[in-house]
Amino acid sequence: MTGKVICIGLGPGDPELLSLRALRRLQSARVVAYFRKAGRPGQARRMVEGLIPAGAEEWPMEYPVTTEIPLADPAYAATLAPFYDHWAARLHAACRTGDVVVLCEGDPFLYGSFMHLHSRLPHEAVEVVPGIPGMAGCWTATGLPITWGDDVLTVLPATLPEPELTRRIADTDALVVMKIGRNLDKLRRALAAAGRLADAWLVEHGTMPAERVCRLAEVAGPVPYFSIVLLHGKGRRP
Amino acid sequence: MTGKVICIGLGPGDPELLSLRALRRLQSARVVAYFRKAGRPGQARRMVEGLIPAGAEEWPMEYPVTTEIPLADPAYAATLAPFYDHWAARLHAACRTGDVVVLCEGDPFLYGSFMHLHSRLPHEAVEVVPGIPGMAGCWTATGLPITWGDDVLTVLPATLPEPELTRRIADTDALVVMKIGRNLDKLRRALAAAGRLADAWLVEHGTMPAERVCRLAEVAGPVPYFSIVLLHGKGRRP
Repeated sequence: MTGKVICIGLGPGDPELLSLRALRRLQSARVVAYFRKAGRPGQARRMVEGLIPAGAEEWPMEYPVTTEIPLADPAYAATLAPFYDHWAARLHAACRTGDVVVLCEGDPFLYGSFMHLHSRLPHEAVEVVPGIPGMAGCWTATGLPITWGDDVLTVLPATLPEPELTRRIADTDALVVMKIGRNLDKLRRALAAAGRLADAWLVEHGTMPAERVCRLAEVAGPVPYFSIVLLHGKGRRP
Repeated sequence: MTGKVICIGLGPGDPELLSLRALRRLQSARVVAYFRKAGRPGQARRMVEGLIPAGAEEWPMEYPVTTEIPLADPAYAATLAPFYDHWAARLHAACRTGDVVVLCEGDPFLYGSFMHLHSRLPHEAVEVVPGIPGMAGCWTATGLPITWGDDVLTVLPATLPEPELTRRIADTDALVVMKIGRNLDKLRRALAAAGRLADAWLVEHGTMPAERVCRLAEVAGPVPYFSIVLLHGKGRRP
């Protein structure tokens, strides 16, 4: 092996929030791979526009399925597993002759798709460069700290059942909810049932040109899947 | 106002994990301020060794108290409040003539000390540059993803009472515990009571030269305050 499969966390969206190491790894890549929905440019690829070195090969890894099959359907895993198998093998073969960089929005090990390649690769062939998680970009965009003192922070996927969302929202100081999209109405009911709807913020496209920051109670209509809902902690503050 | 008070998140410890923007803001600073314990060099300052521009003034902000007064004692807040008042006023005055940069380990809005200055400054005079949280550096150091699929992630300060730690540890998929230090034995008992001690990892000085990553069950003796204990989620993985 002369190279590695290097997954670089790109941060929340603004290309200036890449780390120095992520940029350095990207600029010495021979191959740059990234996930995307078929036929779309891909958010990760957009974030590094102008930063990929001349001469590097680009390998878009197009999901065979995104929302067409429900996650709980066995067909979902049966479709994605061979896709991840294929790309893990291909990236592993390619790193025999130099570094292969995989792009990942946010932080690769926090709900990132790269982990499905990572689990199929030998540990010694992989390097992961952490990134600023999307949620950190979003709470910074609200202009308010997320946790103070002894606050408990809970990170929830909005895909959870409504009673579980309600219970957990009622039992935390600070809250981050990911994967909003079609789960917004359910999440709104859960926040209201927990008595916390009035304090909730919605951040769409955090740190990106289309960024929108507002109180969730003021939002009508659909929101993007990659929106984040936040409750700020109110802990100790001398 | 011609400048701002700009707090830059420095990330988990490795200086190469600074963001491009944090570095750019640092390199155009006229004044660089940072918290430290009296008489110590300060972790934030150490992380930017060699990166502060020639001619910039350095303003160490030395805590009047760290662990000498218990957090719950009213004397703690009574001592720190005027300290934060003083520095907020001084930084605000200084930014009339140019940018003042405040260094902050990790991400400023996630349990950072800067928020105590932030809450004392007018919003329009402040900019916050998010950073890679210490916890992201630590879970990357373990070589394993922290959350998969629909995992719930809970972030706890180890300062919480033991029964509350136990209850919350038993009720989450993935876990990050901050502020370990003298709370290690209590945390160990809580993890054991929740049936999860065998799965817990300890990371000391994540991403720094002194980094140590191990199973918590194998650790004897004291650990640094800025250690982190982790439980990895085990959610959906096609």
